[in-house]
Order: sequence, then C-alpha cells, then structure tokens
Amino acid sequence: MPQSRDSLLQGSLLRFVRRGAWDHAGRLLEKSHPADIARVLDRLTEADRRAVFDLIRSPQVRAEVLPLLEFAARADLLVGMQPESSAGILQLMDTDDAADVLRELPRDEADAIIGSLGERADEIESLLQYPEGIAGAIMVPDYFALNENLTAKEAVEHLQSRGTAEASFYVYVVDDRGYLVGVLSLRQLIMQPPYTVLRDCMVIDPIRVTVDTDQEEVARIVARYDLLAVPVVDSRNELVGVVTVDDVIDVMRDEATEDILKLAGTTVEEVTRPGILRGAWIRFPWLAASFVGGAGGIFLLARYESLLTTTVQIAFFLPIILGMGGNVGSQCSMVVVRGLATGRLELDTVPRIILHEVGTSVLLAVTFAATLGGVAAVLGYGPRAFPLVVALGMFISMLTAATVGTLLPLIFDRLGADPAVASGPFVTTSTDVAGIAGFCLVAFWLL
Amino acid sequence: MPQSRDSLLQGSLLRFVRRGAWDHAGRLLEKSHPADIARVLDRLTEADRRAVFDLIRSPQVRAEVLPLLEFAARADLLVGMQPESSAGILQLMDTDDAADVLRELPRDEADAIIGSLGERADEIESLLQYPEGIAGAIMVPDYFALNENLTAKEAVEHLQSRGTAEASFYVYVVDDRGYLVGVLSLRQLIMQPPYTVLRDCMVIDPIRVTVDTDQEEVARIVARYDLLAVPVVDSRNELVGVVTVDDVIDVMRDEATEDILKLAGTTVEEVTRPGILRGAWIRFPWLAASFVGGAGGIFLLARYESLLTTTVQIAFFLPIILGMGGNVGSQCSMVVVRGLATGRLELDTVPRIILHEVGTSVLLAVTFAATLGGVAAVLGYGPRAFPLVVALGMFISMLTAATVGTLLPLIFDRLGADPAVASGPFVTTSTDVAGIAGFCLVAFWLL
Repeated sequence: MPQSRDSLLQGSLLRFVRRGAWDHAGRLLEKSHPADIARVLDRLTEADRRAVFDLIRSPQVRAEVLPLLEFAARADLLVGMQPESSAGILQLMDTDDAADVLRELPRDEADAIIGSLGERADEIESLLQYPEGIAGAIMVPDYFALNENLTAKEAVEHLQSRGTAEASFYVYVVDDRGYLVGVLSLRQLIMQPPYTVLRDCMVIDPIRVTVDTDQEEVARIVARYDLLAVPVVDSRNELVGVVTVDDVIDVMRDEATEDILKLAGTTVEEVTRPGILRGAWIRFPWLAASFVGGAGGIFLLARYESLLTTTVQIAFFLPIILGMGGNVGSQCSMVVVRGLATGRLELDTVPRIILHEVGTSVLLAVTFAATLGGVAAVLGYGPRAFPLVVALGMFISMLTAATVGTLLPLIFDRLGADPAVASGPFVTTSTDVAGIAGFCLVAFWLL
Repeated sequence: MPQSRDSLLQGSLLRFVRRGAWDHAGRLLEKSHPADIARVLDRLTEADRRAVFDLIRSPQVRAEVLPLLEFAARADLLVGMQPESSAGILQLMDTDDAADVLRELPRDEADAIIGSLGERADEIESLLQYPEGIAGAIMVPDYFALNENLTAKEAVEHLQSRGTAEASFYVYVVDDRGYLVGVLSLRQLIMQPPYTVLRDCMVIDPIRVTVDTDQEEVARIVARYDLLAVPVVDSRNELVGVVTVDDVIDVMRDEATEDILKLAGTTVEEVTRPGILRGAWIRFPWLAASFVGGAGGIFLLARYESLLTTTVQIAFFLPIILGMGGNVGSQCSMVVVRGLATGRLELDTVPRIILHEVGTSVLLAVTFAATLGGVAAVLGYGPRAFPLVVALGMFISMLTAATVGTLLPLIFDRLGADPAVASGPFVTTSTDVAGIAGFCLVAFWLL
C-alpha cells in the first residue's frame, strides 16, 4: 500500500547500494513511481543520492524525479553535472517544472543550462520572466485551446492527433484573436453531437486569472470553484497558460506550512535547506526582536525596584500574568492570520472579528483574573489589597494582549505587510511590555 | 474578475433585498456561480439569508449552494424547513455532500430527512456509516468502473451512454469479481485504437486507498502522486468509491487551519460556529492548563522568597528569560508539528530532527545568554556573580524549552495523540516552570 511503498523501496534500495548490487537496484528503480524515488533520494546522503540517481535508466523518469526533490537534494545533483546533461534532463520536464528548477539555481549556472536547451529554451524562459509567487510562474503553456468555430468532431480529432498535453481535462475555446471565450470539459466534449459548433456548447465567460494574480489567490479560486485547472490570460484576455490543480495543491501546502513557520518566527528555508547555522540565522531576527522587547521589560521593572522590594510577591505573580497574556495574544493573532490566509476574513467582516475576539477575551480575562485573585487571597501573600492588584494585573495583561493580537495582523495586512511574519514577535513583545507596565502601575497605585 | 465577483454580487443582492426588488435579485442569482452565492449567504444575517435562499429558483443550484455554506448558515437554513423540502434538495446533491450535510445535523432531524429521501437513502446512508475523517466519509460512490475485458470502443460508448458521474477523468478497470486491477485516464482511453482490450492498455496496480485510510493520508497520497482522484477499495480490494481532488483540497485546507488553530489552543468550531460564549468555552481548557502551570510557578517562586528579597534584580530578568524560553519552545514545536502533518518528518528522520532543533537552539541560547549577561554587567545590577546567573538562567531556559518543544510533539505522535493539540499548553507550561526552577536554582547556588 502507498503508505509503506517508499519505506520498503528505501530499505531495499539501500541494501542493494551497500552491497554494490547495482543491477538489482536499477531494476527496482524501474518498477518504482517517480514520487517514491524522489522521497527516498531526499533522505539519502549526498554520495548515495548521486549513486542511486545515476542508476535511473530512463531519462524520462529522471526528468520526473528531479523536480520532486527537495531543494537541497536537487541542487546537490545538478551541481557537478555538465550543463549539457542538466539540459538534457530539463528538456524532458514539464515547462513549469523546468522553469522552477532553473529559478532556484545561481544565475550563471542557470544561464549555462539555458544555453544548451535548444528549441525549448524560449518556452522555458518565457516562464522565467515571471517572479515567483504569481500565476505566470506556476502556469504551463501546454494547454489545449481550440477555435470557437470548430465542431465537436473536429475538436476530438485535434485532441487525438496531439501528443500528451499536461492539462488535458478541459478544452479552452478562443476566438480568432486568441482571446479566451469559453471552456468545455473533456467529458462534455465527448458527449456532444459531432457537428455541434464549440461556440454553441461551451460554457461562456469561464473563471480565469491573469498572469500576475498572486498564487495564493489562484489557489483560493481553484478551491472555491472546484476546478481541475484555471486558465491564465494576459492583460488583453489572450490565453497564455493554465495552472493545474496539482500545482495548486503544492501552493496550498507550501503556503500553509509557510504561515505556520512564519508564526513561529522561522521560514520554509530552514526545513528545506537544513543546517544548524542557517537555522539559527533564520530564527535570530524574530528572537532578537523579542529580546529587545524583553530588555524593555527589565528597565520597566527596574523603575519599580522599591515597589518590588517591599512587595516581593509581585515577582511571584509576574510570570503567570505575562504568560497568560502571551497565550491569549497568540490565540487571537493566529485566528486572525489564518482567517486572512484562507479568505474567510475579509474587510467587511473586520468589526465582527474584533468584537468576537475581544468579547471572548474579556470573558476569559474576567474568569482568570478572578481565579488568580482568589489564589492570592487564599495564599494570603502580601498586603490586603494584593489579591485585587493581581486580579487587575491579569485582566489588563490578557485584555491588551487580545486587543494587540487581534489588531496587529489586521493592521499589517492593511499596510500590505505579511500578517504572519509581523505578528509573532510584535505581539509577544508588546504584550509582555504592556503586561509588566499594567501590573506594576496597578500595584503602585493600590499598594 | 473572480476576486471581486462575490463582493459585487453581495452589494447588488443586498440592495435589491433591502428595496424588496425580489425579481431583480432572483435574476441576478440565476446568473451567479453557486460558490459565489454561498459566500454571500455566509455573510448575511439569518433573515436575509433565508429570503435570498428562497429566491434561488433552480433546485439544482440550491443543492449546489447548500453544501458550500459554513456550518452555522447551513444549519440555520435547514432547521425550520420541512423534512420533505430538505430531502428534495439533498436528492439533487452529490452523495458525499448529502452525507456531509446529514452528518452535521442532530440525529432525529437527520433521520426525518432520510425517511423522506426515497431511493437515494441507501446510497447516502452507506456513506454515513463511516465516521468523519476517513476515506469512506469523503468518497463518492459514482465513479466510472469497467470490466477489464471490454474494448476501448465499448468503454467510450459506456461513457457516452451514462449520465454525468462526478469523478469522470479516470476510468477504473475491475476484474470479474469487481476487484480493482487498473486505471486509464479519459484522455488515454480516447487515444486508444478502438479494439484494444482495456486489460492491455490500462496502467496496472493503480495507487489506491482503503475506506478506513485517514483523510490526511489520502490528501498526502493525492498530492504526492499528482492525482485528480484516488480509488477507494474495501478490505477485499473491491472498488467502492473515489475521492476526488476537490475534496482533497478541502481536507488539506481544513487540516492546515485546524493545525494552526490547535497550536493556538482553539478549534475550527470557534471559527465556523461563532459566538463569544462558545469561543471562550473552547479556549478555556488550554488556558486553564497554562494557568495551572503558571500557578506552579507562583509556588516555586514563593519558595525562593528570601533570595528574591535580597536580590530583587532576579525579578527584573525573569520575564525576558521565560519569554525567550517560550519563544524557542514554540518555534521548535511548530516546526515539528508541521513536519509531522505534511509527512516531511518521518520516524526514520527523528534523530536528525532532534539534532537539528537542539543544535540550532544551543547556538541561539548561547548567543542570547551571553548578550543578556552582558546587559546585566553593563547595568551593574545585583551582586558580582549576577551577570553569570542571568546568562546561565537564560541558557537553561532556552535549552529546556527547545528540548521539550521538540520532543513533546514527537512523543504525543508516537502515543497516537494529536501533536498539534497537545503541544501548545504543555510546552508553554513546562518551559515556564523549568525556566523559573532553573533560574532560581542557579541564583540560589551562585549568590
């Protein structure tokens, strides 16, 4: 079953490689799915990976395996290959995969390979002109488009005479200028009487995106309308490519991972190009921002030194008050960040969201503030008013945290910044500082 | 363009509804995509929603809109409808959508509707037997399966004579027992010479899942092998359904959202069934767990009261030390949780992950510990050894946090618990307590 396919494959492959049984390994690879081979290669050491990759006999399979590898593994394999060999593999790839591979290589290596690409160079370079992250960069140019004046019979004949096109579940219909005017699924086409003209049986005004539509937006559209592919047009509505659902799935998975990792103050880089130094370097800015906020806390507390000396119990309660604030703040910001990413949150629902998040947090803040005040009263720590101070401190900390956690991602989004990146350190830092200030001020006034 | 389609639609619809221009509204709805109608309905008030839904004339469109609504909106509409009317709509739905809608209703209401369903009741109930979260619950039974002894020509004729089947981009090939033996894409079928027997042109041993495969695993398989649909077999390898890529996209999006929200200590429920009381109730357990941990911190600090009284500066540095520990801990746990969810992390890579996370964290811990020690030295707070105490406290806090943050999700996963749910409160709580204990112990020994 698929679950264990690749672990079985990996086990057997490694055994063959260790024993030098290259023939067995080669035959096993022939029977394996490119996706499984790629997963195994990702997990091998550099030397083993090269040895196994060289054992793949079919150039077509090599071309399918390579784009499926993680960045680090792919770079390892391509570096040290002759540009001609790389170009030979790239020539057999889907255009979008080839462009992806090239986009990730250093400029001069990519240029050397493109120089050896021959006739496909133009097609691949036309995708390379689009920066990562937009529809143009993930579309394939090998869609299936027919003139609106053809009959269903002619359309089927065209289909049968063409080689495999990657995106072949829809037939796009264009007018004489090449402008997109309709769409038909392959199945709808087969069901038509032979002499129906496409113009009369197509679905008009199909859902489309433009080359510069953000890839997250492309994913949302494919998901919302349950499409298998979405046509990409240029600014004049001329059909230039198609984004297929498998690429959309990759985008969705990557964007979700990216959002989670950004919330944690790290990036996908860390996962795809491992290395302890790089990992530390990637996480450093986020932690440094928190650190600066925390240092602000030190100064703030130092200003209340005499208060802390007379009522040392404040220090006992500081961690729980700041901790609960941090928790509530990150809850609110994660709910908002994810809502923005899935498109569930839109500007017209913003007031409702703020109301919901802050309302929920007021309820929780009251509950935990009262409980903490109760704990302080039972323990009998500090002066008489101390339970009240603690309760108020908790309430202020949780409520400011909720407000900041809800508003910051919305503000960042409105300013065009990525809410997931920005929220993490700003929310934790500002809630910490606000929590300390609130608690100390209350203590100062009431004690 | 699609981006603004639904906001335009919503604006115009609401204007018509407010003015009582029901005719205009009805005509507008006729021209709109069901997915856009659903998004607009989600955002209306209960009364407006019912009014607009009643304006949708085509029963087919109603059946397409309803499953696309958020839970709360759907429940609002169905409650108060006669079981016969609900059944009428459900009869026109895809089987998996109908089962989904029924699964979310209270048992007695669902039974009343099933009683009115007529001949489709069996088909829909056969899906209801599978609990949510596995392949059986998201598959559709209307796939396209043909006997391996048919010719390509016969297969195309079968296809043309059948009504629309939802999952019609693949033709599944079964033997005389109904066991799945092969697959052909619609396109491959069209390209075959007419008298080729399916057995001779099909792809054998297709990738498949069983009815009880977890839906996240189904999504991983569809994503890994770039499938448009994956066949579902029972324990005897008999073909019983198909999971299509549009449902997989929904699963992926939901699972990613769920993971993020679980990490934040809340659930999808909060987003789909809003309400301040419910929101607070859902978040309560997670916060309560943190609170208990924080209360442990109070007692711990109380034990070091005399230490805190003589060296009040410890209190100044407590928030930053705990805060940085919390940050590093949640970074590690989020990286691990997401790695487990995407299948990137597997058991054989666990040692490498631990090494990477802990290695990265040691580097960061040393950096920030040294910096904090430096800050303390410059400020000249506290006794002589104080900078060393602070630095050691920071180091211990960050390193235990990293270790706990990395190991806890792995342990929960191994124990069969959901790493995303479990990690949040346990990581923050245990890092807080460990951080306090570590810092105080070091201070006690050295001062």
